[in-house]
Amino acid sequence: MSGRELPLEGCISARETALVDGLKRWVAIPSISTDPARTADVIASAEFLHDYAISCGLSRAEIWETEGHPAVFAERTEDPALPTVLVYGHHDVQPVDPLEEWEAAPFQALERDGKLLGRGTADDKGHILMHLEAIRGILDARGRLPVNIKLIAEGEEEDGSEHFEELVVRHRDRLAADVVVISDTGMLAEDLPGLTVGLRGMAYWEVTVTTSSTDLHSGVYGGAVLNPIAVLAELLAGLHDGMGHITVPGFYDRVRELTSDERAELAAVPFDESGFLRDVGATAGGEGGYSVMERRTIRPTLELCGIWGGYQGPGAKTVIPARASAKLSSRLVPDQLADDITRLVGEHLRRAAPPGAEVDFSLIHDGRWVLTPSRHPAVDAAAAALTKVWGRETVFIREGGSIPPVATLADQLGAPCVLLGVGLPDDRIHAPNERVVLNQLFKGMQAVGLLWDRYAELGRSGLRG
Amino acid sequence: MSGRELPLEGCISARETALVDGLKRWVAIPSISTDPARTADVIASAEFLHDYAISCGLSRAEIWETEGHPAVFAERTEDPALPTVLVYGHHDVQPVDPLEEWEAAPFQALERDGKLLGRGTADDKGHILMHLEAIRGILDARGRLPVNIKLIAEGEEEDGSEHFEELVVRHRDRLAADVVVISDTGMLAEDLPGLTVGLRGMAYWEVTVTTSSTDLHSGVYGGAVLNPIAVLAELLAGLHDGMGHITVPGFYDRVRELTSDERAELAAVPFDESGFLRDVGATAGGEGGYSVMERRTIRPTLELCGIWGGYQGPGAKTVIPARASAKLSSRLVPDQLADDITRLVGEHLRRAAPPGAEVDFSLIHDGRWVLTPSRHPAVDAAAAALTKVWGRETVFIREGGSIPPVATLADQLGAPCVLLGVGLPDDRIHAPNERVVLNQLFKGMQAVGLLWDRYAELGRSGLRG
Repeated sequence: MSGRELPLEGCISARETALVDGLKRWVAIPSISTDPARTADVIASAEFLHDYAISCGLSRAEIWETEGHPAVFAERTEDPALPTVLVYGHHDVQPVDPLEEWEAAPFQALERDGKLLGRGTADDKGHILMHLEAIRGILDARGRLPVNIKLIAEGEEEDGSEHFEELVVRHRDRLAADVVVISDTGMLAEDLPGLTVGLRGMAYWEVTVTTSSTDLHSGVYGGAVLNPIAVLAELLAGLHDGMGHITVPGFYDRVRELTSDERAELAAVPFDESGFLRDVGATAGGEGGYSVMERRTIRPTLELCGIWGGYQGPGAKTVIPARASAKLSSRLVPDQLADDITRLVGEHLRRAAPPGAEVDFSLIHDGRWVLTPSRHPAVDAAAAALTKVWGRETVFIREGGSIPPVATLADQLGAPCVLLGVGLPDDRIHAPNERVVLNQLFKGMQAVGLLWDRYAELGRSGLRG
Repeated sequence: MSGRELPLEGCISARETALVDGLKRWVAIPSISTDPARTADVIASAEFLHDYAISCGLSRAEIWETEGHPAVFAERTEDPALPTVLVYGHHDVQPVDPLEEWEAAPFQALERDGKLLGRGTADDKGHILMHLEAIRGILDARGRLPVNIKLIAEGEEEDGSEHFEELVVRHRDRLAADVVVISDTGMLAEDLPGLTVGLRGMAYWEVTVTTSSTDLHSGVYGGAVLNPIAVLAELLAGLHDGMGHITVPGFYDRVRELTSDERAELAAVPFDESGFLRDVGATAGGEGGYSVMERRTIRPTLELCGIWGGYQGPGAKTVIPARASAKLSSRLVPDQLADDITRLVGEHLRRAAPPGAEVDFSLIHDGRWVLTPSRHPAVDAAAAALTKVWGRETVFIREGGSIPPVATLADQLGAPCVLLGVGLPDDRIHAPNERVVLNQLFKGMQAVGLLWDRYAELGRSGLRG
């Protein structure tokens, strides 16, 4: 360490303006990975991040090509004897439709009431810049980092991370770390620091029902032929019983039921059930016998994400379409296997369809659930950092969402994964009017500053748990 | 009558080339009445028809504006003592989506194997030109018509004929006729002349289910909230029972059951049930206890014409949408009332929805069913004309489709309506690859030539029946 150190907290705070400014510029690049028309934007987003990482003091940055969209890798090695932290995030974003429901243009980030509104502000560009600007702040204060840092930001997380496992296998040595910090999650409330220790897995499918070789006139054929929308509606309606249980035979076979102690622990987490629903104007639904918190975290789901068929324009078209389709997905919990569930749901839909209706069922992508040990020193240190910055005891939470790359990193690198995110339930990620609460990012930067020091104290051996 | 007459049949045949050429040019005008972006095309179509009518020898033509799209009126009065025939058709066409399923551009009519493929070739531009070119042929042969002819072609038939009744009321004196000939129907097969004596009515609705005020992330909220696609699927699936009967209470209350004699008569009509389905790759569906022919003609239906909600793009979007919608419509039979049915279906859907799901249900348009007397002299004369040209006994058929203006004309003008059309079941009207069999139009021209002579023989009093 050379020269006099400046106070860490002040130097990190000094980066807040830069973070907001950088995030606005990055949000302006519409890196929608599921939309083939946005391929160039995802590349531009990778290039933006590459340059940003260098500007924040990482000593080397690379764009890693994949068969799909590129990832960005950056690193700064201070000393091989120090622990190495791999930070994971993603630089791609969700589509923005329905566009008409946005209060502002989704790619022109709007700052308002301490929030920044725009696609990717919370999920996940804000989190990546939180890390990079914290690094810049630490370097401004001390000229060096207490740990070695690596960053991997993939470009396909919102499109199923299709090439991520291959990328991690290919670059396993470059990615090697003592701990992986994933920043793509959230907390339950602004005043309640939380650390995610469980994520649901997922499988996402498309189903198409075809009942004729051409669209038909609803007068000439109506009443006398199978209607693919009616068949699809019947199939989808039949996926749940009156109690909200999923009817697919075998669906729950491998679901690990929580002990009553575990359920009590989950119930003790402060969670404003009615506020959670009220904020988004939603009504409770789902599986009988479980709380809202349990339904969204420890129970598997089978949700309909999209549906289409026939005429959708203004006025009337008196048609019986040839086919109708839906997108559906399951959130999976320990110990469900995505392959099993895909097979079971596909078989069930095919079996339930009437003769003459052709059912095409295909997997779009899947990913394993994750459970991280909640008494691991790497996790405890992160909880302590949050507690210190937020001034309140950190709760361990289970998230309803899925981050398939977490399982990939855990499996391939053999390092503990810590899920450190500052999102909030009403950030509207994946929906119109996504926003991030800027103070969450600012506090997150401070927590990261504390955490790297704590990891340095634990040392490589202490981090092994 | 002045000068020497030429043979009628030959002079009408001589117009075949002109008919095909004119139809190609008219099809090139995409007069889609349901699409606001096509307003100028519907106007262009009206102007085309206006000029075409004059070129075929009608002595006066006018474009009649409405609050929506314009209609075209044309007439030729030979002698007030002669019977006056009002011919009805429509110059607007259906939308063309899904565009990718067309074998050729829908507005560049393609002649192939004696058929003309293109939107509007059969429904209904071909029929209108069949009349106009027949008039031209008769005039070429004789220099005058045996009856007075009026033509009314509306521009909103495919959009619910919203302003047609108002138009007919306004111009009742101009439209007055001894018989109305509607040419917007078809036959059961190319070698089986048929005359339609019954049409189903219809009511067309849109329903939207809203379950939250914003789209939601399927991980964060999945399993814990109402899903509007699931609610909609449940509502739609619940509209029919396992036997295909419609479950809406009161739906069948006013349905007039056919006598066993009437059913036997319908069963005697030559109808290739399996060919009818096979031609379009469809599977029989619908109401138990009735034949395919009965299901599509004398039984009411409740069909789904379109559905949409959530993500429909490529790949995956893990979203629970805020709302989902469907277009649905009923074909109505004697003595159902469209107003009643709209009320019953709307009440049923609202009642069946779970608390927290908001159901918006709105009527797009409706129209009454029609039954014409099958032993009326005006109908018998039409049957005789078809029998003569086709060389086989004409059958009286009931159609599954709806032509709301028929009821309007019958009610407002107090004249008998004859449904004389030469379409075929696999003309794919309202669907991709609409086509017309040219020989049907050519034979139709000859039948019209014979029919006007027969109406002249019957005279005004004889046509009253």
